[in-house]
Amino acid sequence: MSHTDVGPVSEGISIDELRLAARNHGMPLEALRYDLTPVGLHYLLIHFDIPETESADWSVELGGRVGDPRPILLDEIVASPAVTVPVTMECAGNGRALLEPRPISQPWLDEAVGTAAWTGTPLRPFLERAGVGPDAVEVVFAGADHGTQGDVEQDYERSLPLDEAMRDDVLLAWAMNGQPLPPQHGFPLRLLVPGWYGMASVKWLRRIELVSSPFDGFQQEAYRLRDDDDDPGTAVTRIQPRALMVPPGDPDFLTRERFADAGAIRLRGRAWSGYGPIARVEVSSDDGATWSDAALEPAPAPYAWVGWTFDWDAPAGRHRLRARATDETGATQPDDPPWNAGGFSNTTPQVVDVTVG
Amino acid sequence: MSHTDVGPVSEGISIDELRLAARNHGMPLEALRYDLTPVGLHYLLIHFDIPETESADWSVELGGRVGDPRPILLDEIVASPAVTVPVTMECAGNGRALLEPRPISQPWLDEAVGTAAWTGTPLRPFLERAGVGPDAVEVVFAGADHGTQGDVEQDYERSLPLDEAMRDDVLLAWAMNGQPLPPQHGFPLRLLVPGWYGMASVKWLRRIELVSSPFDGFQQEAYRLRDDDDDPGTAVTRIQPRALMVPPGDPDFLTRERFADAGAIRLRGRAWSGYGPIARVEVSSDDGATWSDAALEPAPAPYAWVGWTFDWDAPAGRHRLRARATDETGATQPDDPPWNAGGFSNTTPQVVDVTVG
Repeated sequence: MSHTDVGPVSEGISIDELRLAARNHGMPLEALRYDLTPVGLHYLLIHFDIPETESADWSVELGGRVGDPRPILLDEIVASPAVTVPVTMECAGNGRALLEPRPISQPWLDEAVGTAAWTGTPLRPFLERAGVGPDAVEVVFAGADHGTQGDVEQDYERSLPLDEAMRDDVLLAWAMNGQPLPPQHGFPLRLLVPGWYGMASVKWLRRIELVSSPFDGFQQEAYRLRDDDDDPGTAVTRIQPRALMVPPGDPDFLTRERFADAGAIRLRGRAWSGYGPIARVEVSSDDGATWSDAALEPAPAPYAWVGWTFDWDAPAGRHRLRARATDETGATQPDDPPWNAGGFSNTTPQVVDVTVG
Repeated sequence: MSHTDVGPVSEGISIDELRLAARNHGMPLEALRYDLTPVGLHYLLIHFDIPETESADWSVELGGRVGDPRPILLDEIVASPAVTVPVTMECAGNGRALLEPRPISQPWLDEAVGTAAWTGTPLRPFLERAGVGPDAVEVVFAGADHGTQGDVEQDYERSLPLDEAMRDDVLLAWAMNGQPLPPQHGFPLRLLVPGWYGMASVKWLRRIELVSSPFDGFQQEAYRLRDDDDDPGTAVTRIQPRALMVPPGDPDFLTRERFADAGAIRLRGRAWSGYGPIARVEVSSDDGATWSDAALEPAPAPYAWVGWTFDWDAPAGRHRLRARATDETGATQPDDPPWNAGGFSNTTPQVVDVTVG
């Protein structure tokens, strides 16, 4: 997530970016059809390597401004009251590769998203047991993943403000879709911060530290909306609203352009926001010149995507479909979101080109 | 797999190629540590969309040169004697993006591989039950995946010579690593052809047809080693030998270059070939100037990768590691494999750059 390296699209994707794309996959958009994304289709971003972890004897170190720094044992966590909740997770960099100029990092198009049923137990009782110091303001979470980024050797570390960390729905999670976490999703234990972009949900959770001043570690500084390196910018936190559709018809292998028969086509998709329920999804079949409301399905959970459908009477010809979401705060997907050097939160409405014949 | 579109690496990866890379992921190379690749880390190549399939009432149509064209019911298949076998699968296009000029298709680097424990039942008794016609020479397999490639609308279809299809180890498979096939790996039923590149193991198997002359469908013609479009070329069939190592030390996020401490490093990896057991794995720490033998672990099964280790006394400095495999037929990984227009079977030995400090 270095925010210094920016290249124009016309240069093409570099081998470094391709190497990341080959490791960190998105969700094929037809998988929007599933309420819960099957494991292996859920998007994945791993900054360093998948660490070699074992569940036996796993524990989470506690430190900093706490009264009782006893480690939290995985066995204790798994024996605590469990909840299972569907949560949509999205990478903060989703849409990055569509920006011009293109910030150089994981080159996501539209597909860095997924929804899983996560099983875990709230973090809060463990913080209360540890005794939160009166001067603690943030909670820092560290994973077992380790490497170098922007010339800084580091464990992957991210913080949450204390009030966010104490939310009832912030979980220590050990299962995904009813199975133990796969290695690539944080086995044996990860943090889950519903509503926030994925960088907050630290995988392979190894260490929790309460701190008395805002954390300024590498990943905390990297995930900021900045104009350039001199701009202090603002923190990337919750997920901006977005709608995506299952591309209709059948694809071309290489271009992924779509081919469909003229007539009634029921478009369907999902929409989500980390700021509140989705209030509206609109669809355009003329590249955004005009928009019409889609029908929303009931929301399954506060932070899980909501299904939508739109009945399109598709005339012969080539059409550019788009979809956009608006949440209950009134936030929506701008045609041209403000550029930022890290390439975060590019929620320009999805484009799907369909040839109807 | 169009074999007409070739672009030089210096142009950079196109958005079309990136879109494929975002859908079809490779196996992060640290996952070479697992005997069996966890679901979601196994490589994946889907030509069109993942089709919407249900296991209820699934059956495989039978046609062509058979005496009894009764469909094969999924229930019958699953009730047949089951075997579970570890098989290494690799995409024929693995290494494509490292060729110059670069054939334009799914831009794999080194990582289009995985090993799963597949559960299924041999195909042969079902062909025998159907009664193989005396003039049948090939068996054509069609999946439920449908789309356009090279301007040809098609179901994904591939054939096997009759004697290959009748091999005892060619399976109708319904489970992977002890779980039902995930949607992206062919749920509810796929073909498994051990030893062949992945294009032969048709997913979402819907139709089997015995034919009296060699099949010349789009995918059959696409997977050929050709110099250019006028070259009839030769068919891509079995997997050429390859060794890969777990990149040692820790990575840089963007470049994936490695950093390790000087001293004893045990390199480890896997090697495989579709032509026979692996006879030898060699490692170079000087970019291929000199090679030394790695230690081979016992082979787990005829078509599953074999583990290897190599103890490297790493001196300070920057080193280019390489690994190569040789199978019992004597086939090995050439420094500079012959270029072909489809970008298949590029088994140039893996390159891993490590800075030792």
